[in-house]
Amino acid sequence: MSEQGTYVEKSYNRDTRYITDRITRDGRDGWPVEAGRYRLVVSRACPWANRAIIVRRLLGLEDALSMGICGPTHDKRSWTFDLDPGGVDPVLGIPRLQDAFFKRDPDYPRGITVPAIVDVPSGAVVTNDFKQITVDLETEWSDFHRDGAPDLYPAALQDEIEAVAEPIYQDINNGVYKCGFAGSQESYDESYRRLFARLDEVSDRLRSRRYLVGDHITEADVRLFTTLVRFDPVYHGHFKCNRSKLSEMPVLWAYARDLFQTPGFGDTIDFTHIKQHYYCVHRDVNPTGIVPLGPDLSNWAAPHGREELGGSPFGDGTPPGPVREPVDPDHNPVLSAVK
Amino acid sequence: MSEQGTYVEKSYNRDTRYITDRITRDGRDGWPVEAGRYRLVVSRACPWANRAIIVRRLLGLEDALSMGICGPTHDKRSWTFDLDPGGVDPVLGIPRLQDAFFKRDPDYPRGITVPAIVDVPSGAVVTNDFKQITVDLETEWSDFHRDGAPDLYPAALQDEIEAVAEPIYQDINNGVYKCGFAGSQESYDESYRRLFARLDEVSDRLRSRRYLVGDHITEADVRLFTTLVRFDPVYHGHFKCNRSKLSEMPVLWAYARDLFQTPGFGDTIDFTHIKQHYYCVHRDVNPTGIVPLGPDLSNWAAPHGREELGGSPFGDGTPPGPVREPVDPDHNPVLSAVK
Repeated sequence: MSEQGTYVEKSYNRDTRYITDRITRDGRDGWPVEAGRYRLVVSRACPWANRAIIVRRLLGLEDALSMGICGPTHDKRSWTFDLDPGGVDPVLGIPRLQDAFFKRDPDYPRGITVPAIVDVPSGAVVTNDFKQITVDLETEWSDFHRDGAPDLYPAALQDEIEAVAEPIYQDINNGVYKCGFAGSQESYDESYRRLFARLDEVSDRLRSRRYLVGDHITEADVRLFTTLVRFDPVYHGHFKCNRSKLSEMPVLWAYARDLFQTPGFGDTIDFTHIKQHYYCVHRDVNPTGIVPLGPDLSNWAAPHGREELGGSPFGDGTPPGPVREPVDPDHNPVLSAVK
Repeated sequence: MSEQGTYVEKSYNRDTRYITDRITRDGRDGWPVEAGRYRLVVSRACPWANRAIIVRRLLGLEDALSMGICGPTHDKRSWTFDLDPGGVDPVLGIPRLQDAFFKRDPDYPRGITVPAIVDVPSGAVVTNDFKQITVDLETEWSDFHRDGAPDLYPAALQDEIEAVAEPIYQDINNGVYKCGFAGSQESYDESYRRLFARLDEVSDRLRSRRYLVGDHITEADVRLFTTLVRFDPVYHGHFKCNRSKLSEMPVLWAYARDLFQTPGFGDTIDFTHIKQHYYCVHRDVNPTGIVPLGPDLSNWAAPHGREELGGSPFGDGTPPGPVREPVDPDHNPVLSAVK
């Protein structure tokens, strides 16, 4: 995603007017699920895109849905394919993600955001509605799930997942942005208090249960994880979310390490991209663009002890296989210490 | 102090050309030690001024040397007496510290810094040479020390104190500023590495000894303390000194708590002034001027266990009496929990 948003009464309000077409089994929006037709465009820096990276990998959708990876930094024209040879996405043949948005609408007026799913034949963005994207990968794309794929959005738990996830979205996932982009001390103070109150509440919930909803990993855990993994490297300092570090909140910290050490989570994390993005792109928050060298990340590999709570990560399913698109080991030195 | 400095090859270089007259027993610079003649001007925000506040209190110099306290925030014209009724220092009768510098030299070209000692009759600054100020309070002002005042700069230990303190100054006291005001990624990286390497080295030294030099508190401890106490509230986030928090470095953290809980140290600390100063004044680092609500400071009151290492804070002396110029309790909520 970009941080496109507006300031109403000096509070940050995310622009959530996305392109909301859906790719479905029945193709009712004109976009039927089809292997090889679409391309998921992400940045490893972005927590919202990170959700889609994790879900695609957990479900084994790599063959059905290819993935283009934008670099961590960009200018006002948003995400670019500067990591690719020649700075052009090898499938879409474009240097900037905005080209796919303009293919969809030459006057596209809103944020050029990741994750986006692009229709490869036409080169046009189908959707950048991050909340719907992962849910549709979990439910509409099931014909292409790998053998042993977990059910991340079980029908019986969907209401609970959404009920749990909504306040987490407001106060934590988006709450860290409200802290960091607050336009006044009052707005910051309010967002900070809501953030840590909600973290404490979620911590209480996770004290006696291994996962947020049910006994296995669900969409709710994916959504929370991508914010928690960025907390100490970025949000704590850059966004002034500094009552305490994640590593100082024992339950949440063990929960986050448990997920990190589960195949499909930590192996999608590029700490270098994450830090470079926030510290280089938000010059209004960090005018120098200097990227902190800390924090020490080695503690992500420490035992978490959460197995004792019962539950199992993949339910009746199995862990995903080896990573297809590995992260540069220098960008995630923890991984070599995990398992 | 202010952060007056220059950037040479994009590294921060503190301007250390101070007014270096000394107030001595023999008055050889024209400024004899004399009770009631001088006024120490400080800000509780500033680590260099904080040294003088601590030393004055430990030595019981309150009656001999009065103290004026500037507010935490200021504009380009530097420190002001905005905390005083009418915004004017009640003894010096001036609204801005610069007025005392201009009394000394109408064309005074350098930083308007605290601590400064002002000659009350003439209204002119005598010295703002922070390193010499505390040493002279400890050695030249001994006729006015309280009964039971500790010897913070014992003749037999002066060489060791300076040898220990000099690399701490370069890499830690001033090192945090080099990180925060670095003009390039390379300069920041270098300062960060030197900072944490030195913190690790000092931590090793303090593992088996309660104080930096000898068996009692000395000038060396005062100098290190005023940086450590600001580490988590300011330097960790604002100056990107974020390999770890002070509270994550067990030896240094216990050492800092030990001093904090010693009369004369923690009772000089105004966390509100400290945070407001850095976050509001350095708009080049923090454009919004928003002051973080964190970190949680309650852990400063936790037992430190350092008594086991032997030594005693005041040697043959005694702790200072009640605080004459108390900190607003809302600005240091830890104090009510200490002792």
